[in-house]
Amino acid sequence: MKKKIKKINAAILIIGNEILSGRTQDKNISFIANWLNSKCGITVNEVRIIPDEEKIIKKNVLLLSKKFNYVFTTGGIGPTHDDITAQSISRAFNVKYEYHREAYTLLEKYYGKKKFNDGRKKMAKMPRGAKLIYNPSSTAPGFITKNVFSLPGVPSILNSMIENCKRYLIKGLKVNSKTINIFTVESNIAKQLGKIQKKYKKFVDIGSYPFFRLGKVGVSIVSRSTSKKKLVEVNKDLMKVINLKKIKILNT
Amino acid sequence: MKKKIKKINAAILIIGNEILSGRTQDKNISFIANWLNSKCGITVNEVRIIPDEEKIIKKNVLLLSKKFNYVFTTGGIGPTHDDITAQSISRAFNVKYEYHREAYTLLEKYYGKKKFNDGRKKMAKMPRGAKLIYNPSSTAPGFITKNVFSLPGVPSILNSMIENCKRYLIKGLKVNSKTINIFTVESNIAKQLGKIQKKYKKFVDIGSYPFFRLGKVGVSIVSRSTSKKKLVEVNKDLMKVINLKKIKILNT
Repeated sequence: MKKKIKKINAAILIIGNEILSGRTQDKNISFIANWLNSKCGITVNEVRIIPDEEKIIKKNVLLLSKKFNYVFTTGGIGPTHDDITAQSISRAFNVKYEYHREAYTLLEKYYGKKKFNDGRKKMAKMPRGAKLIYNPSSTAPGFITKNVFSLPGVPSILNSMIENCKRYLIKGLKVNSKTINIFTVESNIAKQLGKIQKKYKKFVDIGSYPFFRLGKVGVSIVSRSTSKKKLVEVNKDLMKVINLKKIKILNT
Repeated sequence: MKKKIKKINAAILIIGNEILSGRTQDKNISFIANWLNSKCGITVNEVRIIPDEEKIIKKNVLLLSKKFNYVFTTGGIGPTHDDITAQSISRAFNVKYEYHREAYTLLEKYYGKKKFNDGRKKMAKMPRGAKLIYNPSSTAPGFITKNVFSLPGVPSILNSMIENCKRYLIKGLKVNSKTINIFTVESNIAKQLGKIQKKYKKFVDIGSYPFFRLGKVGVSIVSRSTSKKKLVEVNKDLMKVINLKKIKILNT
């Protein structure tokens, strides 16, 4: 991984009718976002889910690649007719959509010459000049076009490939987080929380998320900051409120 | 629900840092998309996940509300400082952000006058002219501003409220779907699938999704269409290919 720069951001672009229709529950967003944040110090600032339509893919790829440091696409890189991510990205960047020599060789070796049919060959077609993201679980590689990283939609395969993106990414400052889980309702602490957020506005983001556990209502207070020091200060202030109000703590 | 019109679409706008950071796995997208499709004949054409930032919320609400028949937002309507959906939507549409009389009365009754503190009162503040989406599980209502439906982020509460959106929605033609699960690899049927898709281009969307089950690789072929007749035709063609190739069927 390359040298650290302060704030690096990314967008995730989920390409797939099966997610939009509700048929499939997406699992890639939280996985990629967690990985980028914890391993690379990269913050995901926007996610979009769009259908398998070339015009829409092209438009979104171009827009997000301009707006963010990196874009991660998932889905649409398999062998069937509805897998159009590679050709759409080629057209978005106006480069040729062609066989990637190394990808072709890898796939031919994996399937054997006899079983290397047209569908499988399609998985070696990419935007000209793409860099490969190796796939240890089923060979068919992902690819990098400018700042756009294209990964498959199947979560287990995507998960096996993600580490291979690392060496192409510039690392940002890690966002540290601290969670306090307490048994209370949000409105009991809303006022004080708002004051603390105001005080640390520039350094810390404080989020408040209700939960139900052990038959009781609770709140997770999550503070996030690139500064560990500020995070400690915020949490001291939060604990003061919690203790003053005699709220039961579940865990921190 | 109102009269049927042919194609009605919607966008979902997930507002929440906790989803973007990967901390929380979203469950609302597939729930809303499934509900809209199966109960209202409304197709979700785009989903966006964005941070709790007024400027970004405003921009996306305006853009999506112009582009689609309906927009469903989730998150950011609770009592804490990071809940800014209602005020952002008010500003997006340039209407006053104020107490909604009925919402105020409902909440005051629910909590009792003594416990109706500022945080709880905040949940009665909405864009002027908003219609309420009643909340049978925890009272704090969602609201409708023009074509934008604002729901909470907690899945169990959202699920309990969704039926109350129905009477405000124009119903579209239902998209029917048919799934065939077979034990084969995608590349074995990619060519034939492409041909069938081409033949029914105008009427049916065919998607192909690999799966792993019982230690074997398989493919789900999903056909989707507003025409049940065309769906039957497509599935006959698909079965011909499957039988010709002697592929084992898991279920249809």
